[in-house]
Amino acid sequence: MGPNLKIVVQDPSFPAYIDSSVIIGQAGKFVDKAGKYKNIEYMTCGPQSDFFPDLPTISRTELIFFNSPNNPTGHAATRKQLEQLVDFAKVNGSIIIFDSAYSAYITDDSPKSIYEIPGAREVAIEVSSFSKFAGFTGVRLGWTVVPEELLYSNGFPVVHDFNRIMCTCFNGASNIAQAGGLACLSPEGLRAMQTLVDYYMENARILVDALTSLGLTVYGGKNAPYVWVHFPGSKSWNVFAEILEKTHIITVPGSGFGPGGEECIRISAFGQRDSIIEASKRLKYLIYQEQN
Amino acid sequence: MGPNLKIVVQDPSFPAYIDSSVIIGQAGKFVDKAGKYKNIEYMTCGPQSDFFPDLPTISRTELIFFNSPNNPTGHAATRKQLEQLVDFAKVNGSIIIFDSAYSAYITDDSPKSIYEIPGAREVAIEVSSFSKFAGFTGVRLGWTVVPEELLYSNGFPVVHDFNRIMCTCFNGASNIAQAGGLACLSPEGLRAMQTLVDYYMENARILVDALTSLGLTVYGGKNAPYVWVHFPGSKSWNVFAEILEKTHIITVPGSGFGPGGEECIRISAFGQRDSIIEASKRLKYLIYQEQN
Repeated sequence: MGPNLKIVVQDPSFPAYIDSSVIIGQAGKFVDKAGKYKNIEYMTCGPQSDFFPDLPTISRTELIFFNSPNNPTGHAATRKQLEQLVDFAKVNGSIIIFDSAYSAYITDDSPKSIYEIPGAREVAIEVSSFSKFAGFTGVRLGWTVVPEELLYSNGFPVVHDFNRIMCTCFNGASNIAQAGGLACLSPEGLRAMQTLVDYYMENARILVDALTSLGLTVYGGKNAPYVWVHFPGSKSWNVFAEILEKTHIITVPGSGFGPGGEECIRISAFGQRDSIIEASKRLKYLIYQEQN
Repeated sequence: MGPNLKIVVQDPSFPAYIDSSVIIGQAGKFVDKAGKYKNIEYMTCGPQSDFFPDLPTISRTELIFFNSPNNPTGHAATRKQLEQLVDFAKVNGSIIIFDSAYSAYITDDSPKSIYEIPGAREVAIEVSSFSKFAGFTGVRLGWTVVPEELLYSNGFPVVHDFNRIMCTCFNGASNIAQAGGLACLSPEGLRAMQTLVDYYMENARILVDALTSLGLTVYGGKNAPYVWVHFPGSKSWNVFAEILEKTHIITVPGSGFGPGGEECIRISAFGQRDSIIEASKRLKYLIYQEQN
């Protein structure tokens, strides 16, 4: 997209948006005290604002990374929230990079694609993947939608640049992986993907029920395979370490997703059912002990 | 590798080295008259110097792209040539990006890897691929060797940066393609690859014989599946167009590989035997007519 662009991310968010900005030299210095890179703007997306940024406080930016359902919080942005985001991008001349990798896990009427919002084709690129829809994490197959309506401020279509770069540097995903992707889109494949998604969402329900029954504040697990648990006043790495040492369960400390993830841990529902049931038991036992 | 690096390429050479330099903003303006990008140095590698650059005339550069056997000329650099190249990189503090994608086609004792040259591990990265070894162009599987001995001038190992970038941006080739690559390296797979290479090299021999019998100046086809034909005083696009119109054979005009490719066309030996025999007949007929 060219040098010296202003980038904004949700905080917390999937680290690759920030890491790739660091690699291309757009992030600036890391400020230890803030836990943030100087030239990246972090939009706080916590429970106090329904996991959506306070847009009037955000500066004009060229690129907005937005992930819905969000990894790690599991929050799927509502239609109203996404309408606000698209409006914001239009007014500011921003491009939204919308990551819908978990959209198959949405169970309510939240939009599964940014293009459900009128006008989004003029301001948004959408990236997604078979990784979480069909267990393709090792098979490696995703896609990027760059609408023809998306133009630079001089009127040149972004898709022409995108096409040139992809054809020069990439040459396409493995044709075997592509054949697998096509099979996923057959009636039989679609049914198999839904069965897989349902299985993981039942795992998520089991985890949410176990943690909620202990009085913990739990987010996610309804529109995403991630459960986001709040431990007020605790450091996320300390919570992670205590769970690891006492139950031998690996969670992810929330601060790994940005300073907005502090006090939280992410628990993944991607696992075999018996492991999830065993993990729920151990977590219940540990937390019950801590509380009594 | 960081901004503002000086890049050199062989002229002629595979266009992706230049194209990727343009994309990352290192190439500078295209100078129409010269047919070259301003900030890229083109090392002339024509038959008058055994397809090897006159190194004493080349400036100090950070990155040297070097492809052997070369696409399009089919020339495999000799051991003595590669020793000179490694020495040059050592004296100048350059990193060689050595592309050995066609090394399986070498039939004489030219080195198949830059690492056959003592000291190369301190100055060279080698990239290669199963595309041309095993017909994996659509399967998509290659590799990059970054030796631990390769250090930046401050002593930091290049491989640490490479590893960080690959793990952040790439996550690995499809595991199915990787399984195919492992199968290629089994005794049975190695035999099958050799059979494929032999088949294409027989194609190359047929093309070389046909063109040589007409008195044309022909290079390549001995250590590479490409035949490089010189038409002194002609524009490569005109030769391409005449062959296409009169024989319905697609060749590649040499100027597409840089200004050093003018007056030449590349003919590929990647084809079915009967197509190659038919193409040889048509080329012989056309050129015989032109000459008489």
